Amino acid sequence: MIVLALISTSLSGSIALSTEAEENASPVFGVTLPAGYRDWQFISVAHEAGNNNDIRGILGNDIAMKALKEGKLPFPDGSIIVRLAYEYVSSERNNAIFGREQSFVAGAPTNVQIEVKDSKRYANTGGWGYGQFENGKANPSVKIVNSCFACHAKLPSNADFVFTTYSR
Amino acid sequence: MIVLALISTSLSGSIALSTEAEENASPVFGVTLPAGYRDWQFISVAHEAGNNNDIRGILGNDIAMKALKEGKLPFPDGSIIVRLAYEYVSSERNNAIFGREQSFVAGAPTNVQIEVKDSKRYANTGGWGYGQFENGKANPSVKIVNSCFACHAKLPSNADFVFTTYSR
Repeated sequence: MIVLALISTSLSGSIALSTEAEENASPVFGVTLPAGYRDWQFISVAHEAGNNNDIRGILGNDIAMKALKEGKLPFPDGSIIVRLAYEYVSSERNNAIFGREQSFVAGAPTNVQIEVKDSKRYANTGGWGYGQFENGKANPSVKIVNSCFACHAKLPSNADFVFTTYSR
Repeated sequence: MIVLALISTSLSGSIALSTEAEENASPVFGVTLPAGYRDWQFISVAHEAGNNNDIRGILGNDIAMKALKEGKLPFPDGSIIVRLAYEYVSSERNNAIFGREQSFVAGAPTNVQIEVKDSKRYANTGGWGYGQFENGKANPSVKIVNSCFACHAKLPSNADFVFTTYSR
């Protein structure tokens, strides 16, 4: 009985791990949230109005940052760019201080989008794999993740499929 | 003659260095641009409309980031927060791709503002010293640098005179 119980625990442990791994990888591309991405260096900022209505910071890992700072595109394999989006919030507190409606700040996180450069693995999508994450979990929608490349592919070829440029 | 010429060179060298140091320190507070600040971790983003009409990323040094992530304010001495502002630019390229006017990105840098926590040195201004920099040079305006604290002092006391909060 003791032996059986141990086997049972071990099996359920494996299953749990496997399920968790799948939850955290994007469909189609298998992109995961990289460890420590929130502490990466800052590339730039943007505001998307319309359906997104977010304000976002874009960060890069060391490989991506080196390419961006040196202006050497296409990005080398191993480059990862992370886009953190937040609700676009009019700050009543700041507006009261400034005496006018002018201040828009980051509210609650909406989602995190990640693009990973691997020219062999992602050869069919310009060398980039994509993923979108909400609350640390990969969005399972194939439609959403496929829409990433469809849109990035519309950029001029010298952008290497990346919207953001480095802000000095 | 040769000796005199050397002395003269040495003197003008010292004067040049001294002038450069003064140019790069803010009036009133003597705040300088910290080495490597552009590579610091990302705190949050904001858009200020109105006279500024900028979009900005806010970065922090390790001491400030630790306090922000742990939610432990007031900030300890040695905390430095850097606000990088850029022209708020409607991206025609992105709008053409998205099929609507929705995308606002960072244009040319406008200025960098820095606040340094030193509760003894800056005891008269809540423990914070301020500086504004354009193209790497300290803005010499006493009026501008004094307006920093005047505005930050209007924040609720639990903000420790800092507008930005950490975006997760």
